[in-house]
Amino acid sequence: MMHPDLQRERSSATFNPELLTHILDGGVQRSKRRREIESLVLKDPDFQHEDANFLSRSERYEVAIKKSSKMVLKMREYGIADPEEIYWFKSFVHRGRPEPLDLHLGMFLPTLLSQATAEQLDRFFMPAWNLEIIGTYAQTEMGHGTHLRGLETTSTYDPSTQEFILNSPTISSIKWWPGGLGKTSNHAIVLAQLYTHGQCKGLHAFIVPIRHIGTHQPMQGVTVGDIGPKFGFDETDNGFLKLDNVRIPRENMLMKYAQVEPNGTYVKPVSQKLTYGTMVFIRSLIVGEAARCLSRACTIAIRYSAVRHQSELKPGEPEPQIMDYQTQQYKLFPLLATAYAFQFVGAYMTQTYHRITGDINEGDLSELPELHALSAGLKAFTSWISSAGIEECRMACGGHGYSRCSGLPDIYVTFTPACTYEGENTVMMLQTARFLVKSYMEVRAGKSVVGMVSYLNDLSLQRVQPHPVAARPVVVDINDLSSLVEAYKLRAAWLVEAAAKSVQAELNRQRGKEDAWNLSSVELVRASDAHCHYVVVKLFTAKLPEIVDVAVHNVLNSLCLLYALHGINRNTGDFLQAGLLTAPQLAQVQLRIKELLAIIRLNAVALVDAFDYSDAQLASVLGRYDGNVYENMFEWAKKSPLNKTQVHESYHKYLKPLQAKL
Amino acid sequence: MMHPDLQRERSSATFNPELLTHILDGGVQRSKRRREIESLVLKDPDFQHEDANFLSRSERYEVAIKKSSKMVLKMREYGIADPEEIYWFKSFVHRGRPEPLDLHLGMFLPTLLSQATAEQLDRFFMPAWNLEIIGTYAQTEMGHGTHLRGLETTSTYDPSTQEFILNSPTISSIKWWPGGLGKTSNHAIVLAQLYTHGQCKGLHAFIVPIRHIGTHQPMQGVTVGDIGPKFGFDETDNGFLKLDNVRIPRENMLMKYAQVEPNGTYVKPVSQKLTYGTMVFIRSLIVGEAARCLSRACTIAIRYSAVRHQSELKPGEPEPQIMDYQTQQYKLFPLLATAYAFQFVGAYMTQTYHRITGDINEGDLSELPELHALSAGLKAFTSWISSAGIEECRMACGGHGYSRCSGLPDIYVTFTPACTYEGENTVMMLQTARFLVKSYMEVRAGKSVVGMVSYLNDLSLQRVQPHPVAARPVVVDINDLSSLVEAYKLRAAWLVEAAAKSVQAELNRQRGKEDAWNLSSVELVRASDAHCHYVVVKLFTAKLPEIVDVAVHNVLNSLCLLYALHGINRNTGDFLQAGLLTAPQLAQVQLRIKELLAIIRLNAVALVDAFDYSDAQLASVLGRYDGNVYENMFEWAKKSPLNKTQVHESYHKYLKPLQAKL
Repeated sequence: MMHPDLQRERSSATFNPELLTHILDGGVQRSKRRREIESLVLKDPDFQHEDANFLSRSERYEVAIKKSSKMVLKMREYGIADPEEIYWFKSFVHRGRPEPLDLHLGMFLPTLLSQATAEQLDRFFMPAWNLEIIGTYAQTEMGHGTHLRGLETTSTYDPSTQEFILNSPTISSIKWWPGGLGKTSNHAIVLAQLYTHGQCKGLHAFIVPIRHIGTHQPMQGVTVGDIGPKFGFDETDNGFLKLDNVRIPRENMLMKYAQVEPNGTYVKPVSQKLTYGTMVFIRSLIVGEAARCLSRACTIAIRYSAVRHQSELKPGEPEPQIMDYQTQQYKLFPLLATAYAFQFVGAYMTQTYHRITGDINEGDLSELPELHALSAGLKAFTSWISSAGIEECRMACGGHGYSRCSGLPDIYVTFTPACTYEGENTVMMLQTARFLVKSYMEVRAGKSVVGMVSYLNDLSLQRVQPHPVAARPVVVDINDLSSLVEAYKLRAAWLVEAAAKSVQAELNRQRGKEDAWNLSSVELVRASDAHCHYVVVKLFTAKLPEIVDVAVHNVLNSLCLLYALHGINRNTGDFLQAGLLTAPQLAQVQLRIKELLAIIRLNAVALVDAFDYSDAQLASVLGRYDGNVYENMFEWAKKSPLNKTQVHESYHKYLKPLQAKL
Repeated sequence: MMHPDLQRERSSATFNPELLTHILDGGVQRSKRRREIESLVLKDPDFQHEDANFLSRSERYEVAIKKSSKMVLKMREYGIADPEEIYWFKSFVHRGRPEPLDLHLGMFLPTLLSQATAEQLDRFFMPAWNLEIIGTYAQTEMGHGTHLRGLETTSTYDPSTQEFILNSPTISSIKWWPGGLGKTSNHAIVLAQLYTHGQCKGLHAFIVPIRHIGTHQPMQGVTVGDIGPKFGFDETDNGFLKLDNVRIPRENMLMKYAQVEPNGTYVKPVSQKLTYGTMVFIRSLIVGEAARCLSRACTIAIRYSAVRHQSELKPGEPEPQIMDYQTQQYKLFPLLATAYAFQFVGAYMTQTYHRITGDINEGDLSELPELHALSAGLKAFTSWISSAGIEECRMACGGHGYSRCSGLPDIYVTFTPACTYEGENTVMMLQTARFLVKSYMEVRAGKSVVGMVSYLNDLSLQRVQPHPVAARPVVVDINDLSSLVEAYKLRAAWLVEAAAKSVQAELNRQRGKEDAWNLSSVELVRASDAHCHYVVVKLFTAKLPEIVDVAVHNVLNSLCLLYALHGINRNTGDFLQAGLLTAPQLAQVQLRIKELLAIIRLNAVALVDAFDYSDAQLASVLGRYDGNVYENMFEWAKKSPLNKTQVHESYHKYLKPLQAKL
């Protein structure tokens, strides 16, 4: 039975959430197919399981590997082969959590496909496809992550035996973190510094057998295991790998691009830029994941806020829904707007990636640098905000958000590593900044730049400077989205220019290029952040004209306006300092935000319903679709392992004997 | 052997960290005593234990209760009875984690002492002191936390038997969250709505036996158990308690203040204000805990940043310590400054509490309302910032911060519930705001106010208003702490006035009082935040003249300046909007912050050394005093439960059979 509060919220919504779901999915057919796949999983007894929160980490690994093996079998049975359908199926089976075969399916197989020669594909692909070979991708070392050139593992070619000798020369060179490495895999693609003829040729990839097929015992010279418990990722055996002069045949170097000939001669690859493509792809996936995880957290917090009643607004009246408190709206609705914004950004990134992949295949790499820079910055921007936003949602559920039954701790610990993996966020922001400053310098040198940074072309015209507010004409109409996009653009331009000038100022103080960069890095990160923020506001705004349903359009328009105004209010200093807003206008922004909160309040539940997460997928007692929270919390708690016995044996073992001694 | 980087950092410090430790401890004798107590624990084989990260939750509970029982015994053996010494001893035994007897020792016994009659003390205190009675404090219910008046549990007096009948009338009335309730306790102090002669007399406290002494089986009518796994607090059996018309003798109501006579006549307590004292005390403890948890996180992140080398600043040169990156300094040093600020605020709160307790005992309650309001706001202010700050520290350690071996996940999950327990933070901020607005209205009515809010008296003179910057004379000297304190004060005054005016504006629109308050709550929280921020800057600044050692004084002065300027930079909009700073001045602030980062860089390791956390207390491989990180990570990982067997049985059970089927 649906909770009467949720029933009322749903019946008073001004739009049809189903239409919005189709927009988010990219079409009605895709919504339908996604639901079909989910129902395949939900009705399958092999994919039912005890609540993971009640299991130890070792049990969680075991449940996951059991389900993953069934998953591989059934995906083939059902003919699920499209990457997006695979993503859905996997996500439904594992309830959005990572699993031990992720690296095999998501990195080992694709890397073979993209970097192996025909001979290597013959040798490795089918055994890997059939899970005789189970692989992982071993790049990160204990001492080096984001800075790839610093990796220490060596692969030294021995022409006398035509073998590579893989070695971990130091403790810090031990491979650390790869998923599935700890217990699951028997092969690893190992990234190592290639040495041939006494020369280092940089990082290359090698297929290294690490455990015997059949017995699964480690190969000689291989020390391999699990790196131990983490904040989350309990299902995954992130592992370590220490190689003591392990020999592999020459043919195990992935040689589609670079090669080492039998006599040890090194043949360079044609272009290094191609590997950018994979990074862009993975980072665009992270943007999508940021959107989905924040959407899930918002769904839980907003549904709970609709059924939780607390305190009193007016003496003698019933306790209001906590969603009626302005402070609660002010916490949750900007995050809801952010979740929508990031959904559209994620979709844009994926589309752009696919478009550019076409260009790349035709040899046109011109857009790649910008996309690479943009994907780095947006990965950092969205993962930071979503990570913090999930915690805001958790705390907005009060004490109950802290219970594992809320599902929120799990969403957080599963998503937050996105801030440090696949490129640490600050480093990512600085990569974007490098592109922004480079583009700025090109403009200064009289060239013109294209794409998302084209606003830099206008810099010489619209001299934006730190300036007393009163001295500038005010241009921003706070109710007009295109005017707000313009404001974000000018802020970004102003901060890119400020960062570039800071670098120049340090250079003028006789600093070296690198020192000048480092001493300006606070400004550089700030510029990247503003650039990404501009891109998000722009993409959200650009989505609106595509939406034909008037009711849906109106509600998304309010969300977009809230997103833009709230961003200004969070960064008032920038907008005031850049002279883009006056203090009285800012006061208007703050009032307008509160009006928008009240408008969104009417549709908040419908807006999270549109994300269309099933109860199984949310795995949250607080976020149930029917709002039936307290009864279910009680049922859930009774299943706690500590409740398996009425009296815990520790009472008789420790507490009772203690009384006699005191 | 000490890591050479840490050795160098320590030898180049400009001050003696030992002197700073004495300041933080409140005197050399207290540092000495704290270390004595720690060494009692560290050398005791009963208090050694396996790394908790490798244990299941049930095992963690068992280890904790075992250690707690030993702890109680040994504290009496050692004659440790001073509250601060008890805190240390407990904290060393349990490595800063909560434990199952916390509520017995910290709430049940003190509540007996403060609210029980002499007869009740006779009956309950010694059995409780000797752990025959193990108690907890059952206040929060599933449906109600911070809003105490909403609690639903009833206690109905039956004069015919002279008993109270305790009852949980609804699912939402089930007691939920009390620590030690799930498995450990046999008694609970239950907060319930007292009914006598058919009238509700509000919340009162009752001693309810919940399990039989000896067998530990639940009493009749009592449903009790563990609420299940949480984000953290694995050692604690937070529990639920459902009472089905459970009868207790009349004499089990805590009757030192209010009473129910045998015939059911209710006798009111003299003053309600007295219970404020306990709340103030607990909230001041949370402020101290916020400081300590953030200090621990900073210790780990800064030591790790000194020994971790990554990437390159200059081509060809060795990889720099990551602490040399300005972005890393910008993340960590403001948090370090915050940790110091909060240490001093915590000490101030405790002192003030003790001073006012003296006054209260003499019947002078005049300062209590202000202290109550201040403690609510500072609890929220410091817990939010520390909670987020711990996560910043974790992410500043890159991927390795995500490993449980870093100790950071544990610090976070142990501390973050402070944002929602003992009064949800937003509600706390609004309580402070209520006092601020009340004080403001008094000033407007021509009265004068005292204490931390006395700046409101000046409002009519220094008409602070939202104003174009250029129109106001600029008063702030960004290098002068007293001038900065003044700026924070004016910002607070400006925001309190803005919030009060917002309430007034809503009233003018014919809103009811409560609606007007709710519709201004974003402004009200903002005002409280600014008030607390002012208090923190003021207290940090006020600490400096007390410090006699010049070298220590200088380094704390830089930290205090960084704290104040960074706070301005994070809230630029306020300072610009209030006309307290000009845009060019703000640019100066931003440059000055970067200079301060470089100055603090020299002493960063010594500044965290001064917090004086032992390796055992930090429980962090990344934060070790000797900096020996990578070797220890490897040793730690090998102990992971998943590594107990070379080949996980799941390989033979699931993966190997799978190959045949594919």
